Amino acid sequence: MSHSLDCIMKPNAVAVIGASTKPHTIGSDLMKRLIEYGYKGKLYPVNPKGGEIEGLKAYPSVLNIEGPVDMAVVVVNAKYVLATIDQCHEKGIKGLVVISAGFKESGEEGAKLEAELLERVRRYGMRCVGPNCLGVVNTHPDLRMDACFAESLPMRGGIGFVSQSGALGGGILNILQDLGIGFAQFISIGNQADVNAEDALEYWEDQDDVKQVLLYMESIKDPANFRKLATRVTRKKPVLALKAGRSAAGASAASSHTGSLAGSDRAAEALLRQSGVIREYSLKQLFSTAKVFDNCPLPKGDRVCIITNSGGPGIMATDSVIDYGMRMAELSEATKETLRSFLPAAASVKNPVDMIASAPLEHYRRTLETVLADDGVDMVISIYLPFLGLKDTDVAHTLMDIKEAHPEKPIVGVFMTKNEFFTEISKGRVTIPFYMYAEEAVDGLARLNMQRKWMERDEGRVVQFEVDKERVAGIFSAVRADGRKELTTRESLDVLEAYGVRVCRAKFARSEDEAAAAAREVGFPVVMKMTSKSTSHKTDVGGVRVNIGSEEELRAQYRDLVAKLSERGILDGLEGVIIQEMVKSNRELVCGVAADPQYGPMIMFGTGGVFVEVMKDVGFALAPLTDADAHDLVRSVKAFKLLEGARGTKPADIARVEETLLRLSQLVTDFTEVQELDINPLMISNTTGEAIAVDGRIKLA
Amino acid sequence: MSHSLDCIMKPNAVAVIGASTKPHTIGSDLMKRLIEYGYKGKLYPVNPKGGEIEGLKAYPSVLNIEGPVDMAVVVVNAKYVLATIDQCHEKGIKGLVVISAGFKESGEEGAKLEAELLERVRRYGMRCVGPNCLGVVNTHPDLRMDACFAESLPMRGGIGFVSQSGALGGGILNILQDLGIGFAQFISIGNQADVNAEDALEYWEDQDDVKQVLLYMESIKDPANFRKLATRVTRKKPVLALKAGRSAAGASAASSHTGSLAGSDRAAEALLRQSGVIREYSLKQLFSTAKVFDNCPLPKGDRVCIITNSGGPGIMATDSVIDYGMRMAELSEATKETLRSFLPAAASVKNPVDMIASAPLEHYRRTLETVLADDGVDMVISIYLPFLGLKDTDVAHTLMDIKEAHPEKPIVGVFMTKNEFFTEISKGRVTIPFYMYAEEAVDGLARLNMQRKWMERDEGRVVQFEVDKERVAGIFSAVRADGRKELTTRESLDVLEAYGVRVCRAKFARSEDEAAAAAREVGFPVVMKMTSKSTSHKTDVGGVRVNIGSEEELRAQYRDLVAKLSERGILDGLEGVIIQEMVKSNRELVCGVAADPQYGPMIMFGTGGVFVEVMKDVGFALAPLTDADAHDLVRSVKAFKLLEGARGTKPADIARVEETLLRLSQLVTDFTEVQELDINPLMISNTTGEAIAVDGRIKLA
Repeated sequence: MSHSLDCIMKPNAVAVIGASTKPHTIGSDLMKRLIEYGYKGKLYPVNPKGGEIEGLKAYPSVLNIEGPVDMAVVVVNAKYVLATIDQCHEKGIKGLVVISAGFKESGEEGAKLEAELLERVRRYGMRCVGPNCLGVVNTHPDLRMDACFAESLPMRGGIGFVSQSGALGGGILNILQDLGIGFAQFISIGNQADVNAEDALEYWEDQDDVKQVLLYMESIKDPANFRKLATRVTRKKPVLALKAGRSAAGASAASSHTGSLAGSDRAAEALLRQSGVIREYSLKQLFSTAKVFDNCPLPKGDRVCIITNSGGPGIMATDSVIDYGMRMAELSEATKETLRSFLPAAASVKNPVDMIASAPLEHYRRTLETVLADDGVDMVISIYLPFLGLKDTDVAHTLMDIKEAHPEKPIVGVFMTKNEFFTEISKGRVTIPFYMYAEEAVDGLARLNMQRKWMERDEGRVVQFEVDKERVAGIFSAVRADGRKELTTRESLDVLEAYGVRVCRAKFARSEDEAAAAAREVGFPVVMKMTSKSTSHKTDVGGVRVNIGSEEELRAQYRDLVAKLSERGILDGLEGVIIQEMVKSNRELVCGVAADPQYGPMIMFGTGGVFVEVMKDVGFALAPLTDADAHDLVRSVKAFKLLEGARGTKPADIARVEETLLRLSQLVTDFTEVQELDINPLMISNTTGEAIAVDGRIKLA
Repeated sequence: MSHSLDCIMKPNAVAVIGASTKPHTIGSDLMKRLIEYGYKGKLYPVNPKGGEIEGLKAYPSVLNIEGPVDMAVVVVNAKYVLATIDQCHEKGIKGLVVISAGFKESGEEGAKLEAELLERVRRYGMRCVGPNCLGVVNTHPDLRMDACFAESLPMRGGIGFVSQSGALGGGILNILQDLGIGFAQFISIGNQADVNAEDALEYWEDQDDVKQVLLYMESIKDPANFRKLATRVTRKKPVLALKAGRSAAGASAASSHTGSLAGSDRAAEALLRQSGVIREYSLKQLFSTAKVFDNCPLPKGDRVCIITNSGGPGIMATDSVIDYGMRMAELSEATKETLRSFLPAAASVKNPVDMIASAPLEHYRRTLETVLADDGVDMVISIYLPFLGLKDTDVAHTLMDIKEAHPEKPIVGVFMTKNEFFTEISKGRVTIPFYMYAEEAVDGLARLNMQRKWMERDEGRVVQFEVDKERVAGIFSAVRADGRKELTTRESLDVLEAYGVRVCRAKFARSEDEAAAAAREVGFPVVMKMTSKSTSHKTDVGGVRVNIGSEEELRAQYRDLVAKLSERGILDGLEGVIIQEMVKSNRELVCGVAADPQYGPMIMFGTGGVFVEVMKDVGFALAPLTDADAHDLVRSVKAFKLLEGARGTKPADIARVEETLLRLSQLVTDFTEVQELDINPLMISNTTGEAIAVDGRIKLA
């Protein structure tokens, strides 16, 4: 027992506290399940009445049990749980699985009870799964522990599965069995008072029989820790997550379900993406993906070959391959020639390879072997539609035989046949994922490709730039001393400059004459922006004047600005004006920081200008950003095409754009009090391609 | 026989030409199928050898048959088909179903044969389904005709189903039966030499037993006719289409499959949308939608209520409802109070209503009845997860009982239980769509809502504006006389103006002095644009000068332009310059026309400026546009938010934007030679909100 969770997941002796003889109670079902599944350790039912339960002697209390006990499954009423834990401690039990409900999920009283439970668990040095959970399962043949009251007896396989929702977890176990997907271990974390998804991830990292991890989550308890762990584990095995509560309405429902704050979904999205977790949006997809990882190696590339005996599904599969951003393999001339040598004239030897309806078993075999041998093919989809005299199960077995001989490339089957086929085939050993619909198969392959890309992706590191931290600390203190939260434009740009962001050349001026002098120094044409402590939305009051070509014009504009402010009675707040270089650009980007109450600061990047709110072409990544994260972030938005240089414009210095994001990340990591930060616009100079912060806004918490 | 297709779909006597006794041939399977399904009319096998087939006397030729024959199913080798048709004509047969392959799909020879086939069909006044098809089915109890060699015997129901792909059609019939979805009629149109999807649509428009139409298409033969028919039929019954060949790769595969040009997918998309056809992107979704239309009335609104015995799936369903743009119903206080009166304290009476895991049958019944009675609820999703002692089938029957009593609102079930449930339940009568996953159920409801919105949508009409058609004809002739295809900017704007598009005030000038005079007339500030017969991309040569504030500046700019052109040696093409009013706007839209070779001209509208190509925020609609189409088109793009008025900008005159699109539609309908037309930018004035065409470009075919 080298890991603290071993006592729960690999116990030599289990006590079921609250075991019962009354049918259709959890205490009865659980005992039955443990026995029926053939738990290899010692099993002790505990019930105050004693007697016999499921043929075993029942103990009035754990303290009456003679031998040592590693883990107790607790199904007693919530009000007896604390006392039960005390007894477990006395008995020397280290692992608890508290199935009982009536804790945090039921309101304030329950939350208090849960806090007391946790306090005891910590004090006694125990680990606890639950409360309000479905139980745990370990299908290892040496253990065969099904301490869970789901309907199905679990099937052995390679999945480690964590579910936050109890009932749903049970539903999922049912479905997995129907789909022929087995699992290694299952933990229903329930209210996750102690053991949570991160613990499971960490535990399964080095368990060889857990080949992939599936997570159903409604909230992520410790995002930073999750990120650290998941980033590591995803390089060893695929981690798939279904995170519910995406919409505001869904999040509100989730919160009343488990009492946990969901955080914004875009933050969760960023977290999962940056950690290499494959996020699924429906159970259907989660299972589809699990099935494909269960049976396929990772491909070497993204080139898909489709072989089919019917044109229509071949076309639909092709559409799907393109939809998912993968490529249709170009078959070599040699491959085509081989195919031509045995396929009829009406067949198409181009990808998708249409063997036509009359294709016999032999054509399936030879075609599949031929395309597998083509170096230009990374993955294969084999489609079958019923045709006179050709049995679906025969085709399926032929495909599986070929797969045995060629295990190096993923092969999936699309069998648009009767449901019976799937029932029939699942009676034997299934080594290829079979789907009813082409798009499901492509979806699966796309996930393999996603995992491949993650494995090939640079791991990334958090770069530390030389910055002037003290200057920023000084500015922030001054702002706070001033009783403000919002920095002025000048202060904001100063902060950015201190962190090495290229801000446009600018001079501050307090009067018309100072402004004229500043403009001469910066060089015409210039932009004049007012800076005020009372107004942050400058454009609304005509506080930005662009393309000022001469000193004469500058002076006129300055006088006009003062007149306008005075007219509106807001001249008092005016600190002065900033005279900036006029950046010639028609490419306005935006970057910034938004702090999520649950996940912390996120770096934002995308299309700026008037289009920010309309286009919503922005991406997010959680700070701290690695260089790989910054690389991905700038490429995640449509605006990236603008950086590459649209017609007639100079390509942007993309490395410098990434650096800007990394520097912002460093800033908000150093100064956690930054609540909001916007560089809008971040302009790409038409002449030099530099990314220049033209305007900035910072707000402190 | 009032409709020309009656002889094929409702024949009193059928001859099977090529009927056979040889097992596993189409000629044998087809005979078996017709007999097994119990065809109520007279059946005549035809085979040169005579004898007996399936217990019926076989005739050496149709000419030997004594009684009248309405329809012949032809399964002879392609080379005998023409002679067979001649005989059918002689016999007085009006309907043909040609299953034989070896026509257009097999190359040039076959295409010639198909042309001859069609010529005969037309000459003889026959109708013909196929060639290269799977056959036809009519499940009407008075007819029971299964003249189709698919695997399954068809189930009676309300679907009319047309398939362009033969084998796929067969696959679909299988799946429909598995899903418990029956159909009324099926036509496998194959190469659609004569009968195509439009014919089927028209035929089914008034057939009461066809409640919904499903189309699988790889191409649309006559888009204009399809649009006319579909627009009419979709107001009477739902029409669902799966159009394959969306991607370029898919379209290319489709073309080698049926030899038909697919046309661009965005044109197909527009066509289906404007016709009220519900487009599906996967078979899975097609069936899911068919199932929900089969069992549910249309809702009165888009407010969904979810009731569940497990929080997790309730949250996922909520996320889905929001994803699909529907609303979560707000339950009334009275409803909540009723729910509270019988649900346990731990339940949540807010939508999603969580009855918690222990909910007995009685809670399902009362909860469903209570929320159905709430006027704020338009549709209900009822979720069940297995729980101790509560049987899935019992819950399902309870839901169906309640549905009988409350047929006015759609109810769907999500049963996250074992596959067996679906098999079990389908043995009896199923009156509620049951799904395994929440998102599938929501998907179905979203389609009901889509159909509701289409039924409520204004039918729209094609408006005719007073325009100066002659002026445009004159300009086009002049351009052609000049040997050009591209119009100059001046000509383009003149054309737009003749069709009543608001173009910005402008004057043409051939010299510096004329330019100065023009500018005085238009009023400073102005924009100066060169207009040239040799260069259409003006910005690339510095041919656009904006914000010219004075005559002095104008003269300097003019001289500079001439110098630049002369330097590049392209001064010759210069016609002069256009002096335009300077439209103050930071909202640049684009609209135009793109002609699809297959579908004809499409009107395009969206975000303009440098963002056109990057953002791809453009929508398309096929001309001629109805006013309802224009209304929908401007609202289909993100740029619509710009029209509504972003921060500080004046809302656009949206009616006028729609009118601009309608006028463009009239232009390209009147002048089909317009190949391309762009108004980029169409600027929204910051001061007046007018939509002003600032630049235009027209290209003729």
